[in-house]
Formats: sequence, C-alpha cells, structure tokens
Amino acid sequence: MSKVEVSFVKYVGKTLELMQDPGLLLVSTSKDGKPNVMTIGWGFIGVIWYKPVFVVAVRPSRYTYKLIEETGDFTVNVPTEDMSDIVEYCGTVSGRDHDKFKEKNLKVVPSKYVKSPIIEQCPINYECKVIYKTDLDSSKVPKEVVSSFYPEGDYHTLYFGEILTVHANKTIT
Amino acid sequence: MSKVEVSFVKYVGKTLELMQDPGLLLVSTSKDGKPNVMTIGWGFIGVIWYKPVFVVAVRPSRYTYKLIEETGDFTVNVPTEDMSDIVEYCGTVSGRDHDKFKEKNLKVVPSKYVKSPIIEQCPINYECKVIYKTDLDSSKVPKEVVSSFYPEGDYHTLYFGEILTVHANKTIT
Repeated sequence: MSKVEVSFVKYVGKTLELMQDPGLLLVSTSKDGKPNVMTIGWGFIGVIWYKPVFVVAVRPSRYTYKLIEETGDFTVNVPTEDMSDIVEYCGTVSGRDHDKFKEKNLKVVPSKYVKSPIIEQCPINYECKVIYKTDLDSSKVPKEVVSSFYPEGDYHTLYFGEILTVHANKTIT
Repeated sequence: MSKVEVSFVKYVGKTLELMQDPGLLLVSTSKDGKPNVMTIGWGFIGVIWYKPVFVVAVRPSRYTYKLIEETGDFTVNVPTEDMSDIVEYCGTVSGRDHDKFKEKNLKVVPSKYVKSPIIEQCPINYECKVIYKTDLDSSKVPKEVVSSFYPEGDYHTLYFGEILTVHANKTIT
C-alpha cells in the first residue's frame, strides 16, 4: 500500500467536509478478528491532554458499539467521491447480518498500532485507541434534538480515540 | 473590520495546528457585558446533530467557567504568530484580577450572533453558542492523565458550542 504517515492536522478539513457528505467509514473488530464497518456523519477532531483525538458517536444499539467495547479501538477511513454508494450502503445494513466488506469489495489491511483494520481503498485512514468515553446525558441534550434524534432514547456514546497515526495516499500528500 | 464569513471547515487544520502552539484565545462575557479572555490548547471541532460544533475544555476554577455558565456562549479567536507573547500572558493571569484586553491592547468588537465579543487582531474567529456540556468523569479518565493534569480533582467541563459563524480576514480567504 503506497501510503505515508502524516500529521493529524493535515487532512482534518477534508475529513470533516467529507464526513458531512457522503460520510466516513468507521471500522471496528471483534476479539477474534472479524471486522465491521459503519458509516458516520458526526464526530470531532482535536486535542486533549496533549493527545490528538478523533471523537466518534455510536449508539448502543449498533453492532459497532459492542465491538468497540470489546477491543477498545477503531479506525476512521475517508472515502473517495466514487465510493459514495458504498458509504450509503454501509449506513443502512448491520454487520450482524451482512459482511459489508465482501458485499462491497472493500479490502481491509492490518493497522500499524490497533486491532481494527483500515480500508485500503480509502485514501486517508486514522488509527484510534479509545482513551475516554462518555454517554450523552439526556437531561442536557436540547429538547428539539431529543425529539428529532432520540425518540426511542437510544443516546449516543462518544468514544474519544487517541489518533496513533494517520495514513494518506502518497498522491495526496 | 475587513472580514468575511467562511465555511467552518475552511481553516480547521490551521486552527488545530495553532491551538497546539501557541494556543487560541477563548473569549466569554459576563451578563453585564464585561468580557474575559483565556488561552486554550485543547479542544475539538466537528459535527453533531447536523450542527458544526467547537468543543472547548474549561476547569470550574476558571473565571471563564463562571462567565460561560452565565451567558451560554463564547468565541474562539485564532492569533497571528506575532501574538504568541499575548497568548502566553492570557494563559497565566486571571480575568478576576486583570483586564487582559487593556493590558495587551486587544481590541474587542461585537459578534454577529453571540454576546461574547471577538478579538479584532485575530484573523479567524468562531462564534459559538453552547448546546451541550459534559463534566469529565474522573472514573473514566486514564490514571496517568489524572496524576498529570488533575491531582487536585479540578476536572474540565467540555462545552459544545454550535458554530454560528466563522469570520476570516479577507487576505487569508
């Protein structure tokens, strides 16, 4: 894979732009090495305790939630524009019933530092290890947000993943 | 002020880079319109509930904490390189005892949407309204982080500020 490691700030603008449309691919894995992928449209990038951190929001009902709880890490993969149909698909079916990698010809390759693999076709990949998490406090979420996004009370958990490295295709560095 | 409004993703890389060195200037205000400024080196930028958000970390012991609790908004101001001595100073003295704006010739101008003003000399300014907050849960913070940053138990509150607009100098747009 012809990728190089870059500073976490280098593609943060591009990452947040694509996160909003079409979305990013969040990869996790089970203890025995079976990976899963889901689409995320929300998240944060920044710094706390002098560590670069990617914060992702996952609902407890998601299969990804179980996997991150099991292994404590994840990767965030930034798709190319021509992958938008794949990104859409990965946001609509669950890894409990589907092997989305196989169905969509997504090739996973091992990460350098974490158990969750990265997606080869994605030009930018963040390897993240969970260092903190917090469940959204329903009493502090704005009322209009509750009725729009949490009518069934399935509040997101925010996972703070230390960015251990970022890989990017040589052609975009 | 010759500034224009830009997309929140446009300068996020530059903002996170400068946040780490020399730091950014977080401005808040009291109910009766007396502003304060402190330096921040930690924070996050991203999206939740389809809203662009700047997350800042403030300890309850800070004067800024009292002001954000009072008025529910803040601005984040990105300094120029030649302001690094000012940024350092604003991280070392409290607004309870000092008028840092006067002492360092920082000119504040009214924001467009929030009560907290912005700093004119800073080329990029984020106007933010608090839509969620969470106190760090000491039981979930890594042990080595507790001993390094919280020996006295003064855990940060994370304020999630919806970015209502971003201003940037015309020369850097």
